Amino acid sequence: MSDFSDSPANEAPFRAIVDCRFGADVIVRQFTNLYRCEVGDGSQVGTFVEIQVGAVIGSRCKIQSHTLICEGATIGDGVFVGHGVVFVNDKSPRATRADGELAGRDDWQLLPISVGAGATIGSAAVILGGVEIGAGALVGAGAVVSRDVPAGSTVVGVPARARERE
Amino acid sequence: MSDFSDSPANEAPFRAIVDCRFGADVIVRQFTNLYRCEVGDGSQVGTFVEIQVGAVIGSRCKIQSHTLICEGATIGDGVFVGHGVVFVNDKSPRATRADGELAGRDDWQLLPISVGAGATIGSAAVILGGVEIGAGALVGAGAVVSRDVPAGSTVVGVPARARERE
Amino acid sequence: MSDFSDSPANEAPFRAIVDCRFGADVIVRQFTNLYRCEVGDGSQVGTFVEIQVGAVIGSRCKIQSHTLICEGATIGDGVFVGHGVVFVNDKSPRATRADGELAGRDDWQLLPISVGAGATIGSAAVILGGVEIGAGALVGAGAVVSRDVPAGSTVVGVPARARERE
Repeated sequence: MSDFSDSPANEAPFRAIVDCRFGADVIVRQFTNLYRCEVGDGSQVGTFVEIQVGAVIGSRCKIQSHTLICEGATIGDGVFVGHGVVFVNDKSPRATRADGELAGRDDWQLLPISVGAGATIGSAAVILGGVEIGAGALVGAGAVVSRDVPAGSTVVGVPARARERE
Repeated sequence: MSDFSDSPANEAPFRAIVDCRFGADVIVRQFTNLYRCEVGDGSQVGTFVEIQVGAVIGSRCKIQSHTLICEGATIGDGVFVGHGVVFVNDKSPRATRADGELAGRDDWQLLPISVGAGATIGSAAVILGGVEIGAGALVGAGAVVSRDVPAGSTVVGVPARARERE
Repeated sequence: MSDFSDSPANEAPFRAIVDCRFGADVIVRQFTNLYRCEVGDGSQVGTFVEIQVGAVIGSRCKIQSHTLICEGATIGDGVFVGHGVVFVNDKSPRATRADGELAGRDDWQLLPISVGAGATIGSAAVILGGVEIGAGALVGAGAVVSRDVPAGSTVVGVPARARERE
């Protein structure tokens, strides 16, 4: 890994980038919201993407448009994340606490997500908190992943299940 | 409810806010498009969110990134709306009228949606027009909700159904 | 079809429009990313929409918010595309090539998608590469379309299937 920089390699308008660490040759497109995250060498971040605090994206990843990478997500090297993917990090989100006040940072449990090297997450997939997706796995477009996905396997559907041989 | 203001409590770049009414301490993040809607005290609106004309958001709600709150939606107090949620207000949308002209505001029937206080809408859920979601209900991530959801119940899947006890 | 222009008919802030061709009276909302695509007379493009290189949108279409129209998509006249729709053009996307380098434009096969005149694509639907959607067809909200949809038919669900009569 090369030294990190605090800005991507490219210029683009309409970006909100705060306290991030970028490897060499990272491309971040317009209409993006990244804060206190890390993106590795050569990775590309598409339009309308948010990457939240503490998320770590490996090297040579492609994060496609309209995707949310939440706090607690760790994405390995060479991962493809399609368009409109949502990573979820809270099993039972609520807007307010029992006392009716707006829930704050201490009022929920962060569920981490990890995606192994070389995996592909199809467009519009939803990855629930606490899930591990193994290296080289393939998550089909539109799948809702609520359980771990073994390395090298393919899952599809709602909820996501291993794909039968066709 | 406090007096309404015409701007959120926070500053953020890249916002398009037109003729909205905001309660006290409302936070609206960057990359947001809000027009002629109402957002109650203490509520928070995430990035890449659109809230359309006539929509009413209660107090102490959290509207997460990439979500669309359509015209005709009424969201109660303390509601959590996850990332990438879509509210739909037209049962049979068409781009054009029978005569081939582009459909206008008089060429469709608005189907209202209501979400009761304290409910949670999971990320990437789709809520179809005409649906009522009861107070405290939980809609699972990725669900497509085509029928009313009773107060306090949990629905998941496509189409959304009551979750069996596990 | 009228002569094409290189800008939409309306003004809006926060747009990234590069080398596009617009028919008469095209409306493109704020927070949009369009490059080297074509949009026909009278069509409307909503907020948070990306339309990629080579995509062709017909006349009098409505493309709703948060939607991605990918390279290789051809949308006929009078088509309604709902909110948060994703068109996919790659059957097996990977971030990197077998040699570990980031995949480039020559490392994948573009799968075209066509949508016939007058069709409606419901919100949050996913249309997989290689699919043809016939004229006047209706794709339900949240459907994942992996096979061709005959003209005039309705499909719903994950994966999308013809709707039974109710």
